[in-house]
Amino acid sequence: MAKAYTVGLDYGTNSVRAVVVDCADGALVGTRVFDYPSGERGILLDPADPHLARQNPADYVEGLKQSVLGALAEAERNPEFSPERVIAIGVETTGSTPLPVDAHTTPLAFHAEWREHLAAHAWLWKDHTAAAQAAAITEIASVHAPQYLAPIGGTYSSEWFWSKVWRCLEVAPEVFEAAASWVELADYVPAVLTGVRDPAQIKRGITAAGHKALYSAAWGGLPAKEFLARLDPRLGELRDRLYEHAYAADTPAGLLCPEWAGILGLPAGIPVAIGSFDAHYGAVGAGVTPGTLVKIIGTSTCDIAIAPTSAEVGDVPGICGIVDGSVMPGYYGIEAGQSAVGDLLRWWVDVVCEGDDALHVALTDEAAQLRPGESGLLALDWNNGNRTILVDPRLTGLLVGQTLHTNRAEVYRAIIEAPAFGARAIVERLTDHGVPIERIVNCGGIAEKNPLFMQIYADVLGRPMLIAGSPQTPALGGAIAAAVAAGGAAGGYDSFEVAQQRMTSLKEHQFVPQPEAQAVYDELYGMYRELHDVFGGLDVSRAADLSTLMKRLLALRERVMREEPVPA
Amino acid sequence: MAKAYTVGLDYGTNSVRAVVVDCADGALVGTRVFDYPSGERGILLDPADPHLARQNPADYVEGLKQSVLGALAEAERNPEFSPERVIAIGVETTGSTPLPVDAHTTPLAFHAEWREHLAAHAWLWKDHTAAAQAAAITEIASVHAPQYLAPIGGTYSSEWFWSKVWRCLEVAPEVFEAAASWVELADYVPAVLTGVRDPAQIKRGITAAGHKALYSAAWGGLPAKEFLARLDPRLGELRDRLYEHAYAADTPAGLLCPEWAGILGLPAGIPVAIGSFDAHYGAVGAGVTPGTLVKIIGTSTCDIAIAPTSAEVGDVPGICGIVDGSVMPGYYGIEAGQSAVGDLLRWWVDVVCEGDDALHVALTDEAAQLRPGESGLLALDWNNGNRTILVDPRLTGLLVGQTLHTNRAEVYRAIIEAPAFGARAIVERLTDHGVPIERIVNCGGIAEKNPLFMQIYADVLGRPMLIAGSPQTPALGGAIAAAVAAGGAAGGYDSFEVAQQRMTSLKEHQFVPQPEAQAVYDELYGMYRELHDVFGGLDVSRAADLSTLMKRLLALRERVMREEPVPA
Repeated sequence: MAKAYTVGLDYGTNSVRAVVVDCADGALVGTRVFDYPSGERGILLDPADPHLARQNPADYVEGLKQSVLGALAEAERNPEFSPERVIAIGVETTGSTPLPVDAHTTPLAFHAEWREHLAAHAWLWKDHTAAAQAAAITEIASVHAPQYLAPIGGTYSSEWFWSKVWRCLEVAPEVFEAAASWVELADYVPAVLTGVRDPAQIKRGITAAGHKALYSAAWGGLPAKEFLARLDPRLGELRDRLYEHAYAADTPAGLLCPEWAGILGLPAGIPVAIGSFDAHYGAVGAGVTPGTLVKIIGTSTCDIAIAPTSAEVGDVPGICGIVDGSVMPGYYGIEAGQSAVGDLLRWWVDVVCEGDDALHVALTDEAAQLRPGESGLLALDWNNGNRTILVDPRLTGLLVGQTLHTNRAEVYRAIIEAPAFGARAIVERLTDHGVPIERIVNCGGIAEKNPLFMQIYADVLGRPMLIAGSPQTPALGGAIAAAVAAGGAAGGYDSFEVAQQRMTSLKEHQFVPQPEAQAVYDELYGMYRELHDVFGGLDVSRAADLSTLMKRLLALRERVMREEPVPA
Repeated sequence: MAKAYTVGLDYGTNSVRAVVVDCADGALVGTRVFDYPSGERGILLDPADPHLARQNPADYVEGLKQSVLGALAEAERNPEFSPERVIAIGVETTGSTPLPVDAHTTPLAFHAEWREHLAAHAWLWKDHTAAAQAAAITEIASVHAPQYLAPIGGTYSSEWFWSKVWRCLEVAPEVFEAAASWVELADYVPAVLTGVRDPAQIKRGITAAGHKALYSAAWGGLPAKEFLARLDPRLGELRDRLYEHAYAADTPAGLLCPEWAGILGLPAGIPVAIGSFDAHYGAVGAGVTPGTLVKIIGTSTCDIAIAPTSAEVGDVPGICGIVDGSVMPGYYGIEAGQSAVGDLLRWWVDVVCEGDDALHVALTDEAAQLRPGESGLLALDWNNGNRTILVDPRLTGLLVGQTLHTNRAEVYRAIIEAPAFGARAIVERLTDHGVPIERIVNCGGIAEKNPLFMQIYADVLGRPMLIAGSPQTPALGGAIAAAVAAGGAAGGYDSFEVAQQRMTSLKEHQFVPQPEAQAVYDELYGMYRELHDVFGGLDVSRAADLSTLMKRLLALRERVMREEPVPA
């Protein structure tokens, strides 16, 4: 049989990447990154409001063209490849990143009268302007519709669909009124590729709908009109202009339209897989199975697990969401996450130390020389809020234990350890609630490039850290979804399970916990949880312990320094 | 009457300064600073132990000669001045800074066999190696001699005499055994000037004895031999080689000996005032009176108040010490302090940001643009422990409220605010315990040079900040003590009160609280006290409040940013 290829698209925070993948083994034959040209590294900011983060939808469309053409051009260096052998396209994006569109699915921001209006652009996942709306949704739902909150961990987030749309309604009602509908970026790109002009005809993906928009088959789709009307009557009316059904990845979004087939030089009519999120398709690309936790570690972290829909999975408090089919058909997709991981290091190096990449390297080297506990420091990883397990974007950072000798490398290590502790809190929350975690597969920029980070994670979590074989698991996941959308007869696969077996892999090297370091981190994690539980409001009964926390950090430091160095 | 002059000597942490002062009005006619040549900026460090801080006594002797000769040379440019018109010398130093001496009052460190031994040098005030000894002294005294603890606020410090001597005995018994006696730097320099060869003949000052060595007339001098023997029998024996009596500043240490009169070119036989500490004579030089709090603000801060011995002054918990005559004869000297003030800024700029003086200036300018509450940050000022009111050198720093946008200038402002909050806690503790504070006079490097700092102090404390007229209040205080030691008949004065009236002044400009800033800082101080009381173990019942602290900081920030800018 002739070679078959799929295209995967990965819409990230600062750029979009296209990959061309060999369906036989998942090998990458072409790739291209397109940096969003608008704003600051692709993000439209408001100097008066640090919570605001928007994107220009024009960057998405231009990036679609440039990244796919670039990846195809690279693939064509391979003599076996030709564009006619591309059998499907899969798309995943950041989310929740909704954008207002007109009656022809054209983003409002494309119209001259809205171009300068930040509310008419895409509301990027990390836009935190809607904290008040999120809190109100949580409050109203807890009284009138607690069932909505159970599968999302009990708290609706300011990063999510309804918070953002409601916020738009309140601060920019003219934009809200002008919008025929709101579309997640994950659904918008497939709509462009499949030429859907009527927003009502867009096939919406279950990932965005289920994890971010309170969609569930259990209550007949989106939240009831009556509930939305309690927030604002106009949100109730908006429901009619959204969607009745959302689809898992066993239903394609549609077929590549002639216009975009022409632009990209690909065969018209090939399937475009249903759109999903980077983390969810990333988990697919990392080989997620029941019992596997996939961590996609970059500026922030997304954690994904799955459980067969035949299994009994209860609600897990503080977990971002549990949604049937959101990762792969036939499984519950379970999502957790941390709002700042690599961003913490970027904050420290770029903003505070005013350094550059060379300083990242230097501080990593210096931090690697420190033993666990040596710095006497302990940090909370909440500089961008806490997504899991406290689900509170308005928490902030904390650093304790500094002396007049504390240096920047010690802080650097402390803010690697802090998200590692946060990661452990997530794993414990999952396993405590019946989601088994037998192995952890890591992917994303930090997993790829930062061995110190991964070793600390292994030591803190007390588990081996496996690394996904592909450096581009989200895009690979999109390509796998495309291969499944195309089906076995077309050169793809008839199931995700088989497609994953063929197209994903693990790197040979894994990071194994060092017992001495693990023992120290067990103690530090206990102290982290004291700070976490008190400042996060989870268990203030632990607060009395804080009166001795500084001393215990010092005592640990002194003990560690007295002990013989751990053999490398 | 012919002009009369006195010499004041100020032994600081990094250098010694001599001044020549006109007794008529306190005018400075000559000054010279001598930087200690040994170690790192005059401090001998141990790379393996960040708590260690020693000094080479040879620097003290060389500095005595160089600084006085330099100051006299400058004074001689004044046609009215001549060295024969110098009527007395006064000395104040850092403390507790004890050094071991041989039977001829020669520092052990001057002997070849001890020169390389860090324990044989002077144990600088900020040496914190004796934390365990301090804790044991507190514990043993609380059981067997609680009266010793009452006037020192309930806790013996690792910075003080007995902790350090005991520590020496434990880690360097050979040094302890070789020492004929231990002498505070404040007593050592007058002993050199007056040519006292027998340690038993050194007139010890009440300031060091009373504030640092548990000396009190109430129990017959130093702690009882039986008590000291509980710590270690050899400490009990040491008591016999120390002193029976300590003297207030109405008794001179002695008369300038011919040898040093020759070295300095001064009249032999003029009085040398009893040695004291920089803070205590600094308070004299700043014009301390009952109702005045003098703050000497530099790398750390010393706070001094006095109360007539006729007044009822109870013990004040958490205050460093209340000692009869330690500032001026006839008054209780009340001492409090903060372990890191300017050092906090130096830590942030030099160690963390790896910047220089220019960065200090730039961050000061940037921090001055911020409104109170705008950064959303709150810090504890404990990077070098807490001296008052928690008396715990093993507390550490804490910073809360940081986001991914928090910059170095915001932290810089937060660590100016933190010691200001600590200063307010001290003032409240004093006034709550019957020590009236009617005005605050500031002196020291920061009071002189940093208007942002002083404005924040005024706003946080809700009181005007007055600035002492002399930039060298400690040395001036030494010169005033010298003028009193010489007496009115010799061209000096017969009382400290009259000498102060003539020789001290205030600067015209004072820093007045701004009501809007004061209101915001009242709220922030409330939150500071929550952190302070919980992490300091003072009142853990407030810990439940911490669960909302991050939100309250954000809410305050948002309110401040919504309000109109405060007119400059």
